[in-house]
Amino acid sequence: MSVFNRTGLDKPEARVPQSNLPRQLTQESAEKVTELSGDDRRGFLKRMLSVSSGAALGGVALGGMGATKALAELSSEANLPPNVPSWTRTLGQGVLTKPYGEPSSYEKDVIRRTVPWLTADTISSISMTPLQDLKGIITPSGLAFERYHAGVPDIDIDQHRLIINGLVEKPLIFTMDELKRFPSVSEIKFLECPANGGMEWKGPQMEGLQFTHGMISCCEWTGVKLSTLLEEAGVKPEGKWILAEGADGSAMARSIPIEKALDDTLVVYGQNGEALRPEQGYPLRLINPGWEGNTCIKWLRRLEVGDKPWYMREETSKYTDLLADGRARKFSFVQECNSVITSPCPEKPWRAKSGADKGEPSTGWHEIEGMAWSGRGSIKAVDISFDGGVSWVNAPLKGLVISKALTRFAYRFKWDGEPLLLQSRAVDETGYVQPTLAQLREQRGLNSIYHKNSIHTWRVESDGSVRNVQLG
Amino acid sequence: MSVFNRTGLDKPEARVPQSNLPRQLTQESAEKVTELSGDDRRGFLKRMLSVSSGAALGGVALGGMGATKALAELSSEANLPPNVPSWTRTLGQGVLTKPYGEPSSYEKDVIRRTVPWLTADTISSISMTPLQDLKGIITPSGLAFERYHAGVPDIDIDQHRLIINGLVEKPLIFTMDELKRFPSVSEIKFLECPANGGMEWKGPQMEGLQFTHGMISCCEWTGVKLSTLLEEAGVKPEGKWILAEGADGSAMARSIPIEKALDDTLVVYGQNGEALRPEQGYPLRLINPGWEGNTCIKWLRRLEVGDKPWYMREETSKYTDLLADGRARKFSFVQECNSVITSPCPEKPWRAKSGADKGEPSTGWHEIEGMAWSGRGSIKAVDISFDGGVSWVNAPLKGLVISKALTRFAYRFKWDGEPLLLQSRAVDETGYVQPTLAQLREQRGLNSIYHKNSIHTWRVESDGSVRNVQLG
Repeated sequence: MSVFNRTGLDKPEARVPQSNLPRQLTQESAEKVTELSGDDRRGFLKRMLSVSSGAALGGVALGGMGATKALAELSSEANLPPNVPSWTRTLGQGVLTKPYGEPSSYEKDVIRRTVPWLTADTISSISMTPLQDLKGIITPSGLAFERYHAGVPDIDIDQHRLIINGLVEKPLIFTMDELKRFPSVSEIKFLECPANGGMEWKGPQMEGLQFTHGMISCCEWTGVKLSTLLEEAGVKPEGKWILAEGADGSAMARSIPIEKALDDTLVVYGQNGEALRPEQGYPLRLINPGWEGNTCIKWLRRLEVGDKPWYMREETSKYTDLLADGRARKFSFVQECNSVITSPCPEKPWRAKSGADKGEPSTGWHEIEGMAWSGRGSIKAVDISFDGGVSWVNAPLKGLVISKALTRFAYRFKWDGEPLLLQSRAVDETGYVQPTLAQLREQRGLNSIYHKNSIHTWRVESDGSVRNVQLG
Repeated sequence: MSVFNRTGLDKPEARVPQSNLPRQLTQESAEKVTELSGDDRRGFLKRMLSVSSGAALGGVALGGMGATKALAELSSEANLPPNVPSWTRTLGQGVLTKPYGEPSSYEKDVIRRTVPWLTADTISSISMTPLQDLKGIITPSGLAFERYHAGVPDIDIDQHRLIINGLVEKPLIFTMDELKRFPSVSEIKFLECPANGGMEWKGPQMEGLQFTHGMISCCEWTGVKLSTLLEEAGVKPEGKWILAEGADGSAMARSIPIEKALDDTLVVYGQNGEALRPEQGYPLRLINPGWEGNTCIKWLRRLEVGDKPWYMREETSKYTDLLADGRARKFSFVQECNSVITSPCPEKPWRAKSGADKGEPSTGWHEIEGMAWSGRGSIKAVDISFDGGVSWVNAPLKGLVISKALTRFAYRFKWDGEPLLLQSRAVDETGYVQPTLAQLREQRGLNSIYHKNSIHTWRVESDGSVRNVQLG
């Protein structure tokens, strides 16, 4: 285990040797398909070539011996027949079988999930994103976590209105078509419930990544800058706060400082290229990039400009942090810098899923991957530890690095089967370093629910399973 | 109309005056809600405040007079009552009503569509993306165009295998789990059928943007670089081409030069954060960024390395361009630089959709928006014309500008109701300028189907309707 090293990119263990991974993989594969005798294999090969050439379907023949030879080579070298599956022998479904597409039925377990004991009723509850199955930085809209205070209203887009009133020169009311005539912007931003991870202030109790960190998503949002609309209404000099109010049954509302409203707040109608999903606020919501998800009022119907905050229910009895001395931290808007390792995780252990070694630990090379984010801007760096934070190595960021968006990091690692205490620690562009749980508890006590952005620990057991643990 | 000007950002017409748009919008709104008498309005106001304050639902009261006064002001100024919709008076659906989310029922017309006469059967046909309703640069997976040669196979991910054979040191066979152990990348890239626009070589015949340009999508793809896999297999010195073959009933296959395969070709299993959709190749497909969509073999089951192209059906009888002299242009891989104005378009005319002036032309300020893309790299600039290409102004790019991805451009324009011949012309980072149809026809004749990337013209009529036309 190397000591802390921010420039660990060139360390030997960061490289995948050319000969290690494929040999192992090929052997695994060979063990999986052994049921046919030599004669059967030849039969299989013939049938496969017949289908591959498209002869039965009126197609053009393959390159001839080139293909045959190669397949024979493959069959001989790996001691297995190429498997010609049933779906290559039939015709599939035509276009527009689903005019609006859906995932494969083989992905039926990749869904949002909730924790039943969390709330008394599903209309005021939360579901979580299956982070363990996500790739890249875009969260598909169908899997973005949900949080409601009175359920999802079924809003007719033609009947929906946005009102701007209060301390403005000219109160305004907009139809959706009118809002869409304003110049639009599209931005990829994360959206996180401040309660994300909040069940674990006092100790680890959730069994998987979906539940420890799944109250987060990251989408491409399209809409109008709130500053554009406020400019049209004309904010009076004494206007210092905005009340954003939803059209749902709870009339969910939050107070937002005018500085944020005039900075990067968006009034959005688009999500990942299409209209907002109903559970995300269709047809209109607020996005306060980097801020508590619940300030991003869904089903947005009214923006009132005032001279002080309103102290609504959801910023007094909820969404404040009760400190150790009994006082409450209020208007803790920013979602601080955070990160988590997504592979491995309890749902994605380092154990073979199939084949002769099914259930055995998968030693050898892995790409440890995770995601980091900060409400204050871009992710600058991520370090990971294999020993519970004693030593650290730099895990390079990969793909797009966008301010206030999920950012991926990865580190290539050869696992020898020894237990690990895996951690990630993100640093954002302001220099803020993701704290340990001990540091967070020291500052905030144990009464908190919200804003638990501490370094997370996965224990990798020698059998390849991964457990959620907390270090002292 | 101003003359060609690449730095037209500061031109007067590029700014929206603060007083123009909102006044007009407020008047439109006022005309929409006029059915209640003064007494009814007061009743409405009271009820609205009761709901807004959350009193009936146990919430915290609004700021009191501030809100009342503002609403009264609004009601008086715009001569209308704020509309308190039925969905604010009831509870909605709870979380996990849809563990995998779906669009609002009010968006039911935002779907893929096909042209029935285009092909004899839906299993070998194409559906098109509703570009007129899309925002930003991500195409939602459910709306990405489909193209099949033998329908969509229903592939069991656990049974799927990828074979690498031919002129390699070591033929390999991979399970999906094995492929996912390799270091992954996620990249946003467009995917376009080379037949996009191909129905219009000889004249305009499609009635809307979805049909003139809808064979394109842009997603975040996640997978392994093909170069990584080929490095593991070890390409022999004489290996110059790759045959990529699908597991569908047509065993769809294309030849790809080794240079591309070792450059930026991806073997992907992820699309917009989740697994590939079935119609996009679940569980595995090739992505050749910037190249013909049909080279991006779906349901990928085999990669064979060879010393020359295979001349498969889909690169001989199809996907070649018959020139005027009877010779055929083959291996025309790159999707050249192209662009189209998406707003307005035939499906999104400049006419009021509702209100007292329903059906009337919407004069005044608009944001003309469109998208541009190039298979050779990034979009450098887009110009638009209002007079069919006589004069041009620069339309600034907006949002992310990513190589070989859709790129948005926009231009703010005050329409006086005069007819327009709207065009866009994109330039990519190589300096390639999108050609006129006349230039393209001169070079390629009239026998072509594929690679029609010429400047497109929408005629905006004085009634606000938009028609697909071609200029001589």
